[in-house]
Amino acid sequence: MSVIYERVALIGLGLIASSMFWAMKRAGVAGEVTGYARSAETRRTAREIGLCDRVCESAREACEGADLVVLCVPVGVMGAVTAEIAPVLKPGATLSDVGSVKRAVIEAVSPHVPDGVHFIPTHPLAGTEQSGPTSGFAELFDNRWTIILPREDEDEAATRRLETFWQALGALTERMDADHHDLVLAVTSHTPHLIAYTMVGVADDLSRVTDSEVIKYSAAGFRDFTRIAASDPTMWRDVFLSNKDATLEILGRFTEELFALQRAIRKGDGDHLHAYFTRTRAIRRGIIEAGQDTDAPDFGRAPKGKRA
Amino acid sequence: MSVIYERVALIGLGLIASSMFWAMKRAGVAGEVTGYARSAETRRTAREIGLCDRVCESAREACEGADLVVLCVPVGVMGAVTAEIAPVLKPGATLSDVGSVKRAVIEAVSPHVPDGVHFIPTHPLAGTEQSGPTSGFAELFDNRWTIILPREDEDEAATRRLETFWQALGALTERMDADHHDLVLAVTSHTPHLIAYTMVGVADDLSRVTDSEVIKYSAAGFRDFTRIAASDPTMWRDVFLSNKDATLEILGRFTEELFALQRAIRKGDGDHLHAYFTRTRAIRRGIIEAGQDTDAPDFGRAPKGKRA
Repeated sequence: MSVIYERVALIGLGLIASSMFWAMKRAGVAGEVTGYARSAETRRTAREIGLCDRVCESAREACEGADLVVLCVPVGVMGAVTAEIAPVLKPGATLSDVGSVKRAVIEAVSPHVPDGVHFIPTHPLAGTEQSGPTSGFAELFDNRWTIILPREDEDEAATRRLETFWQALGALTERMDADHHDLVLAVTSHTPHLIAYTMVGVADDLSRVTDSEVIKYSAAGFRDFTRIAASDPTMWRDVFLSNKDATLEILGRFTEELFALQRAIRKGDGDHLHAYFTRTRAIRRGIIEAGQDTDAPDFGRAPKGKRA
Repeated sequence: MSVIYERVALIGLGLIASSMFWAMKRAGVAGEVTGYARSAETRRTAREIGLCDRVCESAREACEGADLVVLCVPVGVMGAVTAEIAPVLKPGATLSDVGSVKRAVIEAVSPHVPDGVHFIPTHPLAGTEQSGPTSGFAELFDNRWTIILPREDEDEAATRRLETFWQALGALTERMDADHHDLVLAVTSHTPHLIAYTMVGVADDLSRVTDSEVIKYSAAGFRDFTRIAASDPTMWRDVFLSNKDATLEILGRFTEELFALQRAIRKGDGDHLHAYFTRTRAIRRGIIEAGQDTDAPDFGRAPKGKRA
């Protein structure tokens, strides 16, 4: 594959940025990749493991001369980081981000974007429970969706270039507007995460059941909740604060349904429960058919090697 | 390994029974294994794939002369099945079951157990989203916990024999009383399943987000919910109806916590959210250290072959 962006800057060096770096190297689509992280410890680790061609001591330094700048920081600080780097963004460059919420990021970032710079938000729907600079791997985006959210009047060539870039990293791409994105993600990601966090917290709190019992007997269903409830706390705090309306809407629907099932249990209405449980199987089949999961027996998943 | 029970009867031929059969064959701990399923279709399939040494046309026929009878039917019919087979249970035999709820099963089954028969309930904490006679595999119980629930005054030798049997199938064993079991499982399994079913139902219902979007973008968290929400509807209906009190108690705690987090989101209380999300990570680490899951990157789990 040929180079798509001669100079790429990654601001923030966690799971997504480090995976992007290894995926760029695998695909050969970037010339020099610079990186910056606020923590000196993270920058040191990045240098040790060869993450980025050049790790810089400031965000501005990393962004100077970049053709593509990708903000990989928590949603809550996207605006401040953009204000800091804006003076060095070069005309014609593309500024992007990988935040899990889009309306709030667009509102925070847009006012700081210089004329002549293309701000094109994205959201790669991929992740693991790991975080930090050592957690990335080249295959993270393979066969996963990256949503591209060009704003109105965005330059089509710049958008296409970014799409091609993400496809080169292994991703499938789809365009969407920010409000719809935030609603879809509230359903498929944000509310499930909040619920998982809640359930794990309840288990941890219940004094009549010890943590060691919860841990030993987790294979009966609970385990899958703990996986998603182990994600980065700062990232998730910012997600809920910045996608408040959609999350609260879906939570409202969720509790309404939950109360209906709770009442069916209390009343002994087996038909209601059976019908509900039968209906939800169809969605699962769809996910397997779409290649977004396997139906292999799940023992605790088999390790899969990192290539990097 | 030497034979532990000369004759074993499996009543009901779904995921657990079929896995028990293949695990017994792997371990060589049973002489002849008979099986019965209510559905003629299931019996036909069982004969075709060599599931059980002899598939019988009635539960009674399967149980005649058995040293161990294991009820692998939904919790709601355990009592009726026991009443049917009671006349042929031989003195000194062990009757067991693998139901996910124990107090209700003990109450339903005990009145029908003939004198001289040891009724020792068990619960293997293992499963996949698959069900039916073709879904079993010998490794299902490996390194998973099977809970043994001897009733008061149960014969120690009979209990030990059943424990040794489960250990030979690959399981770790632990003894527990029925009420504590039902509470622990309400936390680690029953409530998580209900919540997962609910979330999948909400996603399916939301007209502004299509099912195809839910499916495409499921890798962002939702996928893990659909896995457990694809389990057998009949089994789960019976679980909720027969573990009503513990499930409703845990659900009450869950909604209380969820409302507190919901209020924190509404008020923008980031500190509360961050502290909560940090605390739940510790439980996850415990599960990985206990060998009940891996922390490998999760792409949709790698298929793992069936041996059988």
